[in-house]
Amino acid sequence: MPTRLHRLGLLLAALVAAVGAGARTPVDLLITNGRILTMNPARAVIEGGAVAIQGERIVAVGPGTLAADYAPARTIDARGGIVMPGMVNAHTHLAMTVFRGLGDDVPDRLRRFIFPLERNFVTRDVVRAGTLLGLLELIEGGVTTFADMYYFEDEVARATREAGLRAVLGQTIVNFPAPDAPEPHGGLALAREFIAAYRNDPLITPAFAPHAPYTVDRAILRQVAEASAALDAPVLIHLAEMTDEVATLRRDHHQTPVEYLDAIGLLNRRLVAAHCIFVTESDLTLLRDRGAGVAHALVANLKSAKGVAPALRMFEQGVRIGLATDGPMSGNTLDIIGQLGYVAKVHKLDRKDRNVMPAATVVEMATLGGARALHLEDRIGSLEPGKLADVVIVDTESTALVPLYDPYSALVYAASPRDVRTTIVHGRILMEDRVVRTLDAPAVKAGMRALATRINAALAGGLK
Amino acid sequence: MPTRLHRLGLLLAALVAAVGAGARTPVDLLITNGRILTMNPARAVIEGGAVAIQGERIVAVGPGTLAADYAPARTIDARGGIVMPGMVNAHTHLAMTVFRGLGDDVPDRLRRFIFPLERNFVTRDVVRAGTLLGLLELIEGGVTTFADMYYFEDEVARATREAGLRAVLGQTIVNFPAPDAPEPHGGLALAREFIAAYRNDPLITPAFAPHAPYTVDRAILRQVAEASAALDAPVLIHLAEMTDEVATLRRDHHQTPVEYLDAIGLLNRRLVAAHCIFVTESDLTLLRDRGAGVAHALVANLKSAKGVAPALRMFEQGVRIGLATDGPMSGNTLDIIGQLGYVAKVHKLDRKDRNVMPAATVVEMATLGGARALHLEDRIGSLEPGKLADVVIVDTESTALVPLYDPYSALVYAASPRDVRTTIVHGRILMEDRVVRTLDAPAVKAGMRALATRINAALAGGLK
Repeated sequence: MPTRLHRLGLLLAALVAAVGAGARTPVDLLITNGRILTMNPARAVIEGGAVAIQGERIVAVGPGTLAADYAPARTIDARGGIVMPGMVNAHTHLAMTVFRGLGDDVPDRLRRFIFPLERNFVTRDVVRAGTLLGLLELIEGGVTTFADMYYFEDEVARATREAGLRAVLGQTIVNFPAPDAPEPHGGLALAREFIAAYRNDPLITPAFAPHAPYTVDRAILRQVAEASAALDAPVLIHLAEMTDEVATLRRDHHQTPVEYLDAIGLLNRRLVAAHCIFVTESDLTLLRDRGAGVAHALVANLKSAKGVAPALRMFEQGVRIGLATDGPMSGNTLDIIGQLGYVAKVHKLDRKDRNVMPAATVVEMATLGGARALHLEDRIGSLEPGKLADVVIVDTESTALVPLYDPYSALVYAASPRDVRTTIVHGRILMEDRVVRTLDAPAVKAGMRALATRINAALAGGLK
Repeated sequence: MPTRLHRLGLLLAALVAAVGAGARTPVDLLITNGRILTMNPARAVIEGGAVAIQGERIVAVGPGTLAADYAPARTIDARGGIVMPGMVNAHTHLAMTVFRGLGDDVPDRLRRFIFPLERNFVTRDVVRAGTLLGLLELIEGGVTTFADMYYFEDEVARATREAGLRAVLGQTIVNFPAPDAPEPHGGLALAREFIAAYRNDPLITPAFAPHAPYTVDRAILRQVAEASAALDAPVLIHLAEMTDEVATLRRDHHQTPVEYLDAIGLLNRRLVAAHCIFVTESDLTLLRDRGAGVAHALVANLKSAKGVAPALRMFEQGVRIGLATDGPMSGNTLDIIGQLGYVAKVHKLDRKDRNVMPAATVVEMATLGGARALHLEDRIGSLEPGKLADVVIVDTESTALVPLYDPYSALVYAASPRDVRTTIVHGRILMEDRVVRTLDAPAVKAGMRALATRINAALAGGLK
C-alpha cells in the first residue's frame, strides 16, 4: 500500500523537521514585533506581538514569546507597525474609478451625470479597467474584503480573483436598459448565472444587487427575495438614501424604505443595505432583529449633502454596521482609513458630544463591524486563531503618527491610506512594503489614463 | 573710477552670458512641465506650464514655451505633478505635537488635559522638540506659511528659521501663570521683547497672542490693542469658539465676542481670529469691514463637537478667511490637504446643497484665502510674477489620483499630504522628492519618541 507508506513518510519528515527546529510547529508565515489590534472579544491590544498563519488561516495570535513555538517558512518583521484585521469596505462600485472626479460639485448628479456616463461608456472592457484600478487602491489602502455592485459583475469577479481580494459581488438589477442587459431587469437572469458560476469560490460570494427600491419594481424585488432564499445568496441594495425615495414609499405604501423591504421579504440575514440615512428608531429595531447588514458611507453622504445616517445609534443598538466608501464618483477614494476620521468627528458633531464615537469604536466598525455587515464575522474581522488570515500592517513612520500614544487614535485621527505597508488576504501576501504583487500597478494606471483621455475627448463632444 | 569700470565689466559679463545662452535670462530655479494652479485673479490653470524663480521671488509664470526664455541654474521637472502656491495653515500650536493623541475623545479637554499637561511638561526644550516635529510635518505636507501661538514663542521662531518656513508667530498672553511666565499676563512683556527681536525678519512676523476673550482680562486686551497699533504687530487670538464664552460676554457686556473685540479696539487689519464658530450675520459684516482675518479650523471644531463656523458665508461676504488645523491635540494633523475634503463636504451638508463649496473654492481658501487671513496676500498666496516664491509640487502618481480629470477635485477629494513631493519657501527648496533638506527628520522623530516615553512614564504616575 504505497499510499499509506507515502503518508507515513510525510509524517516522519514533518516530525524530523519539527525536532530539528526544536519541536517548533511549521507555519507558512509569522508576523513578529507588531502592535497587534486583535479586535477579539476582549479587544486585546498586544505590544510586540506575533501572528502565525498556516495556509489561509490564523493559527495563533499572542505575545512575542509565541514566535519561539513556530518554525515559519516566512517571517515578516512588523517592528514599529500596527498589525490589524484587514479592513472591510461594505459598499462600493469599483469600476466607476473611470469616472472619478467627473461631475463633482453639481446637482442631481445621478440622473444628469452618472446614468448618462454609464449609458455612453460602460462596456465589459471599461468595467475591467476600472475594477483593476479600484482593486489596486483597495490593496494599497489595506482593504481586504469589499462588497461591490455594478454591471458586468462577472468581469469584476474575474479581476478580483486575479487581485486576490475577498468580496461579496452583486450583479445589478434595474428597471431600465443597462450596459450589460438591454431589457429592463435583465440583470436578474445575469445574476442567477453569475451566482451559479461563483457559488463555491473560496474568496468571492456572488450576490443579487437590485439597485434600489425606487429603481426596481416591487414584483422584481419579490423575485429577488425568493431567489435569494432559494440559493442562499446575499442581496446588496441602496436603501433609505434619497428623500424622494422615502416620500414616494410613504405615499404609495405607507411604509418606510426599511418596512417596505421587510414586507417584500428582503430584510433578513442575507441583505446588505447601503446608506440607511433616513431610518426611524423602529427601522433600527427591524434592521437589528432581522439581522440585515448596513453599509455606512458617511463621506459620500456628506459630499452629496444627503445627511448623516444614525450610525452611532445603529452601533449602540446592535445593528450589523460597517463602513463603506460608496463608488469613486460619490466618495472619490476607496480605502477605509480615509473614512475613519470623518466617522469619528462628524458623529461627535451630530451628537454635540466629543466623547462619543471614540477611535476604538470606529476601528471596530472598519473591521469586525464590516465583517458583521457582510455576515462574514465567523470567518473574518478579527485576528483570532481559526479565522481566515486577512491581515494588514500599517507603518507608523509618517511624521503625523509621531508620537504614538494610542494606536486607535493614530489610525483614526492621523493615518493615511498611504501608511499601509503590507496587505494579506486568505494567507496570501498581496502587497509587501508598498509593492503590490498580484497586479501590475504601472500597467493598470497607464490603461486607466488612456481610457480617461478617450472619455475626455468624447465628453468634449457632449453626452448623449 | 574703478567702481564704474567694475560695473561695466559685470554688465558685459552678463551680456556675454545672455548671448551665450541665446539671450536667455538667468534665473535660480525653473519648474517645468507642471499643471499649474496659479490662483491669479483669473484663477488660470496652465497645463504643462513653467514657473521661473530668481532669489526669493517668482519672476514668471506661463506656458511651457516660457522655459526657452530662461537660463536656470536649476530645473525641477514637475511632469505629472500639480504646481500650486504653498498652503497656509492660519492657526496652530506646533509644539503640542508632544501631546498628540493624548486625551482624545474625552470631555472638557482644555481644562482637564491640555492645561494640566502644559503645566507639567512644557519647557523650552519641549517646545523646541515639538516645534521641530511640527515643522517637519508642515514641510512634508506642503504648508509654506503658518500662524502659531504658544509659550516660548522665541524658541518656535528659532526652529522656524532653521526649517526655513514663513510664519506669523504669537507669544501667548493669558491670565494665569504660564510655562514661560510665572506672573499672570507675563507673556505681554515677553511678546514685546519677541516682537523687537524679530520685527525685521524676512520670514517671521512676530505677534501678540492673547489666548482668548475668556482667558485674558479686558484691561490687558486693551494694552495689547494699543501695543499692536504702536508697533504695527499682528494679534492672534481664539475667538467665538466656546458657548460659555458667548454666554458670559452676552451677560456681562451685552456683546458678541466679535463686538467685544471691536469695542476694545482689536478688530482690525492686524487681527487673526481663530475659529469664529459663533458669529452673527452682523459679526460677519464687522469682520469684513474691519479687515480682520479668520482661521477656519473645521476638523478640530468637528472633533470637539463645537460646531461648524459659517465659513462659506464668510467667504461669500468677502471676509478674509483661510484654513487651519489648530494644534495637534485638537486636530491631530498639521497639513492643510487633510482639511480640504472636510471643508468641501461638511459645508455641503451644512447647507444641504451639493453644489456649494466646490473644490476650486476650497483650494482658494487653502492658499490665497490663508494669505488674506494673515494679511500677506500682497506677498504670497498665488503664483504670480513679483510674489514671493512659496511653491508646492503635488505628485499625482498615487492610485487615488488616477484618472485625473480635474486637479481641484483631485486635491480636495482624493489627495493625501503624503502626495506632496517638493516644497519651496522664499525661493529655497525645503523638501525635494520627499526628502526634507533643512531638518534631520530621523533625529527629530527619535527625539520626539524619547520625549513621549518620558511623558508616558510620568502620566502613569498621574498628572499634578
